[in-house]
Amino acid sequence: MSSDPSAEVRSRATLSEVALLADVSVSTVSKVLNGRTGVSSETRARIEALLQDQRYHQRPSKRQTAPLLDVLCYEIGSPFAGEVLAGIEQAARRRRVGMVLAGTTVEQVPHPDWVEDVLRRQPVGVVLVACVMPPDEKQKLLARGVPMVAIDPAGTPDPDVPSVGSADWSGGYHATRHLLDLGHRRIGIITGPHDMLASTARLSGYRAALESAGLPVDPDLIRPGEFHHADGVGQGRALLTLPERPTAIFASSDLYALGVYEAARSLDLAVPRDLSVVGYDDLPIAEWAGPPLTTVHVPLAAMAEQAVQIAIRLSDEPELAFSRIDLDTTLVVRASTAPPA
Amino acid sequence: MSSDPSAEVRSRATLSEVALLADVSVSTVSKVLNGRTGVSSETRARIEALLQDQRYHQRPSKRQTAPLLDVLCYEIGSPFAGEVLAGIEQAARRRRVGMVLAGTTVEQVPHPDWVEDVLRRQPVGVVLVACVMPPDEKQKLLARGVPMVAIDPAGTPDPDVPSVGSADWSGGYHATRHLLDLGHRRIGIITGPHDMLASTARLSGYRAALESAGLPVDPDLIRPGEFHHADGVGQGRALLTLPERPTAIFASSDLYALGVYEAARSLDLAVPRDLSVVGYDDLPIAEWAGPPLTTVHVPLAAMAEQAVQIAIRLSDEPELAFSRIDLDTTLVVRASTAPPA
Repeated sequence: MSSDPSAEVRSRATLSEVALLADVSVSTVSKVLNGRTGVSSETRARIEALLQDQRYHQRPSKRQTAPLLDVLCYEIGSPFAGEVLAGIEQAARRRRVGMVLAGTTVEQVPHPDWVEDVLRRQPVGVVLVACVMPPDEKQKLLARGVPMVAIDPAGTPDPDVPSVGSADWSGGYHATRHLLDLGHRRIGIITGPHDMLASTARLSGYRAALESAGLPVDPDLIRPGEFHHADGVGQGRALLTLPERPTAIFASSDLYALGVYEAARSLDLAVPRDLSVVGYDDLPIAEWAGPPLTTVHVPLAAMAEQAVQIAIRLSDEPELAFSRIDLDTTLVVRASTAPPA
Repeated sequence: MSSDPSAEVRSRATLSEVALLADVSVSTVSKVLNGRTGVSSETRARIEALLQDQRYHQRPSKRQTAPLLDVLCYEIGSPFAGEVLAGIEQAARRRRVGMVLAGTTVEQVPHPDWVEDVLRRQPVGVVLVACVMPPDEKQKLLARGVPMVAIDPAGTPDPDVPSVGSADWSGGYHATRHLLDLGHRRIGIITGPHDMLASTARLSGYRAALESAGLPVDPDLIRPGEFHHADGVGQGRALLTLPERPTAIFASSDLYALGVYEAARSLDLAVPRDLSVVGYDDLPIAEWAGPPLTTVHVPLAAMAEQAVQIAIRLSDEPELAFSRIDLDTTLVVRASTAPPA
């Protein structure tokens, strides 16, 4: 999944070539590019289509005195977003780039006016956090030469958008390996959305660890969720009320883990005496949990730094093509895991 | 502390009056106002001083096509900041204003280049979250007609900067009253920084509730902190190892409360059987805690909405003077409080 950044030169149409093909003036094309009014919706659609066909890449404006970086983020108030946004802010500030922050809809896509507002701001780039960029919006940004970089994209990473993630398979493998090493043999997992690559990779790591220990993978022990606390409570209860209940749960997010704590408490099971729990992400709440949570550390600040760096590099050198970078994950052992009773 | 928004007209010098007084051209004054180079540091200082003396208020630029709102926030990644920032983002987005986010230093003041970057961006206003605006920076913003609004300012609210807070005294009173009503008589408190008005008000509410119940205020039971989790652990242990330990603790932030949980756990005391705990803020972590935390709900999203509304109103009508608005707080009873054993 990881690959070295490599460069390729993209063919690009000029503004006047697009105007010629659309049979309009250069200034009309420019109006569409810059999100201004005064163009009929029909003409606008025709020019948009041409810009897309011709893979037009606008040179970013160099005259900007106060450069901006647009950030689109799913669930701004979540502990996960908090860590990532703090990292992006630091990285942007170090380069004296202002960070413009916008939230998504619950479907993890931008709100209707977002792309238009971004085009008006002419940012050096866009960083996407845990969200999805629909093809139309994506093409509008690419056509204006606004580079995009995604951090932990929802769904499957888009080959058109460079992305920064972390070693999810390895994180899942080591979390499970840790529980196996403690002597657990019946280990449940709560996974993320099945259409999200990061979540599939964690599940794969879990399976691989079990298989390498010669253990069968019991489908009853694999439970899906949407990375919310409530899934941890619900699926935690489901796992802990199985006829043969697991002695450990790999909760593939810290929020799940807190939910599993709640499920255990409601069934009078003590962590780690009756149940070991491993989380994922290593957000501050992992340390504050009772007991402090063993979890997989994801280097969110470093990922944010990488994403900002790539976005700004692409704004200077749009010919460069980055694909995917995965940073390393590490297991942090705290007090929520112990040998089975 | 609360007062109705009232209006007064401020006297203002024009750009040319300032140029006349400084014996420079209007364009030199304009350079200083807009943070541009090409002015000697001596001249710049003289003009800054005049702008300050004359209480110059620049009309915000109306030609801006993509208006921005600058937000300065202490500890962007904290759960408290997460709630407030999500609220600000929604309020700004509803008005199609882009939110520019910057963090502070650990001293809760802006980083060195921040004010200069804000002046270059010419935002409609600035919202301050839990931070302090030094007099120099404040004057530079006021001189350029950039309105400021503070949400829960650190320290004592500045009369020059309108602020939005919540009913801290009442929150402290009702939190303590709830514990008294359950039958607790020995109630500890962990307070915030003593120079922060919000924290003093919560302590006052605690005292008033004890006094209204005819109980003495024991200074041993009053412990200070800086609103961090570690203070909750440390001061929680200090309270719980007193010769005559309290049966309840009013932790005046949710992070403190999680720290008190940790302290109780380390001493083998169960919440709420052996110890009742009340938090403050009602952040999402309060609901996720084990057991779910009884806490004082602070309407952070509504406060954010108010702050954005005032900032934008002031950018249109700089003559209006807002001072302070406090929104209501309410006690949310969950599972961390019970009658004493």
